[in-house]
Amino acid sequence: MNMYDLIVKKKRGGTLAADEIRWMIRGYTDGKIPDYQMSAMMMAICFVGMSDEETKDLTLAMAKSGDMLDLSAIKGIKVDKHSTGGVGDKTSLVLAPLVASLGVPVAKMSGRGLGHTGGTIDKLESFTGFRTSLSTDEFIHNVNTIHIAVAGQTANLAPADKKLYALRDVTGTVDQMSLIASSIMSKKLASGADAIVLDVKTGDGAFMKNLEDSRALAQEMVSIGRLAGKDVSAVISDMDQPLGFAVGNALEVKEAIDTLRGKGPADLEELALVLGSYMAVKAGRASDVREAEEMLRESLLGGMAFDVFCRFIRAQGGDPKDARDPDRLPRARYREEALSPKTGYISDIATEEIGRICLLLGGGRQTKDSRVDLSVGLVLRKKKGDSVKEGESLAVIHAGDRALLKEAKRRLVQAYSFSEEKPDPVPLIKDII
Amino acid sequence: MNMYDLIVKKKRGGTLAADEIRWMIRGYTDGKIPDYQMSAMMMAICFVGMSDEETKDLTLAMAKSGDMLDLSAIKGIKVDKHSTGGVGDKTSLVLAPLVASLGVPVAKMSGRGLGHTGGTIDKLESFTGFRTSLSTDEFIHNVNTIHIAVAGQTANLAPADKKLYALRDVTGTVDQMSLIASSIMSKKLASGADAIVLDVKTGDGAFMKNLEDSRALAQEMVSIGRLAGKDVSAVISDMDQPLGFAVGNALEVKEAIDTLRGKGPADLEELALVLGSYMAVKAGRASDVREAEEMLRESLLGGMAFDVFCRFIRAQGGDPKDARDPDRLPRARYREEALSPKTGYISDIATEEIGRICLLLGGGRQTKDSRVDLSVGLVLRKKKGDSVKEGESLAVIHAGDRALLKEAKRRLVQAYSFSEEKPDPVPLIKDII
Repeated sequence: MNMYDLIVKKKRGGTLAADEIRWMIRGYTDGKIPDYQMSAMMMAICFVGMSDEETKDLTLAMAKSGDMLDLSAIKGIKVDKHSTGGVGDKTSLVLAPLVASLGVPVAKMSGRGLGHTGGTIDKLESFTGFRTSLSTDEFIHNVNTIHIAVAGQTANLAPADKKLYALRDVTGTVDQMSLIASSIMSKKLASGADAIVLDVKTGDGAFMKNLEDSRALAQEMVSIGRLAGKDVSAVISDMDQPLGFAVGNALEVKEAIDTLRGKGPADLEELALVLGSYMAVKAGRASDVREAEEMLRESLLGGMAFDVFCRFIRAQGGDPKDARDPDRLPRARYREEALSPKTGYISDIATEEIGRICLLLGGGRQTKDSRVDLSVGLVLRKKKGDSVKEGESLAVIHAGDRALLKEAKRRLVQAYSFSEEKPDPVPLIKDII
Repeated sequence: MNMYDLIVKKKRGGTLAADEIRWMIRGYTDGKIPDYQMSAMMMAICFVGMSDEETKDLTLAMAKSGDMLDLSAIKGIKVDKHSTGGVGDKTSLVLAPLVASLGVPVAKMSGRGLGHTGGTIDKLESFTGFRTSLSTDEFIHNVNTIHIAVAGQTANLAPADKKLYALRDVTGTVDQMSLIASSIMSKKLASGADAIVLDVKTGDGAFMKNLEDSRALAQEMVSIGRLAGKDVSAVISDMDQPLGFAVGNALEVKEAIDTLRGKGPADLEELALVLGSYMAVKAGRASDVREAEEMLRESLLGGMAFDVFCRFIRAQGGDPKDARDPDRLPRARYREEALSPKTGYISDIATEEIGRICLLLGGGRQTKDSRVDLSVGLVLRKKKGDSVKEGESLAVIHAGDRALLKEAKRRLVQAYSFSEEKPDPVPLIKDII
């Protein structure tokens, strides 16, 4: 077998066999296949595409390129959740303890934020002392005792995907659907869950800007997972405005705590309940999603979900007092309202731009090595369809620097669009696959 | 400007501007743009293609990436000839002195053979003492005095093309028409000629196997040349059987000498006259190709062309006695006839295979570093349309090794196809552009 022949085969519209894909990924991970051949292959795939079978084979090859987590020591059906990333997306912070409160084992590997989207691991570090690096034993022990553990990805999780993604990132080959799907799913499959619920974001603040692409990506990922023998569902949810109101690490943690106490934004609660009900059913804790949703709602209102959250924070080294009194979490030095220049209705919010404003304030990573300021961000006061008067507050900016605050305010006001008529409401859940 | 944006632009079907192409080729030659980005670009070009303008810009950028030969010290209009390569293609050996005998300045850079096709420089080295490495002064002096000089390409001729070709060769991106055309033409433009006549081979023994592709390549090269301000024509000639009878370096030199003495194979003579007449017209030595052909024919029959050949051999360090008595050229140790297994007509000759048999005997290069045995090869006794009896000779094999001779004989017989009916004759010249 040689890489040249595989490139030519794909270029001519051919289908790569499972052993060819395994050979290619092993060779690339080992450094035997050079970057310049792999980038030619990736570009050919962008034009020719891959079959479902090829995509599954690629995903499995990448999943098996490093450590495959063995979660068999955890009792019950392990269900993982993955979001394709959005602005203000603190869903995991609510969802994980919520589902765990039903006794579902939540063994979650999470990532850090990059670019305009945040990451669960960064957010959890708002709790002083919180550890996201757990030994496998500790990870499994926590899930078996309190039903929940959240850890950062180990360095050797799907290293082929890490190497390939870095190459695609600089050769204009990131946007091919099968490659995106296999990149996400390789990490999920290596993480050892039995079932996976995917939250595929769609809209301006998401990686996929339109519903058609989001649906295609969801279908591709569900197909890979099922071909790999996993129970997978995908929820397609709106990202044409931030989820909830808060954007920024500690600010989002506060909003997640409010939600776990039954006082959160409606959209965030709805999404957590929908995703959670699918997870509970897959884990065998409820017979259907209606029943599951009832149980989850009860857990929120009865405080059980919040109790699990506090135990989880303590188990990983944080102080649950910070959860009970979120004012103890990191707070920015400056806070100022951004005022509406118009009277009318909010017709649109440039969501990616909201994420970029948070990035500007220091709340995210421009590159992988950036340091994150957990305290900064913004809390919207107005969302799509809300009425607003000129001079009324659109959002509060939380900043550590006066100059950045000023710039953030200017850009925030520009991120809002206004209309005279009240726009039609948009459903949060677009589709379930 | 950055390479990522250029890759994405091309991938999305865009057209690269002249300054973008120049920047890219300069950066790649300097090693600032890595191979993995360039190979992604090359693959995108394979799918999207390039406009005539882009192809011309790429060609000029590559031509200017190294030394541009300045032939202005040579009097008259310099006309170069280039063949896309074939089996038994000794045309330059006949054509160069033939055209020079009319007073046309022939300042030719030639290559070595690679794979199943031969190269003029190797063939000329059949003359003991012959030098293909000339200083610019000597090169120009020879053209100004005897109208002819043939030199090997300098190391720094179109280095961008050299680097890019090596990359394309291992990434499955060699067969894109605009890339092939710009690779050839960049070297021609850097070689400093005012006008160029291209011999585009078509058929089994050529790089382009079918007429449609050969015509497209010819048109692409003519278009590049004309956009670059050069007077260019292309002759498309048959390569569905070897040109002439001899295949192998010294054997081809002998056949070229026969042709210069007016006793050569009809097809070789015809091709030399057609290409030569276009060169003579471009150089202003004849008013039309008919007149030019008359003059060339006279020069062949009158011995003027052969005289120029002898002067040329002497001027570059060879002994003209070797030309007058070709038995003095390198001769192989073993010679054996390969006999026909059938009676009938020759319907087909697997031409690339004939080239590969010569390669097997040691007469060509498997890789760039192979050493060539100038004495070996084969001389066909039967060509397409000829009648043959069982046991009659198809070809003489010239070999330096008994085992290789045996293998060559076996393969040669298999390279011939036979029919009961006499096949229709095929024209040598397929088209002129």
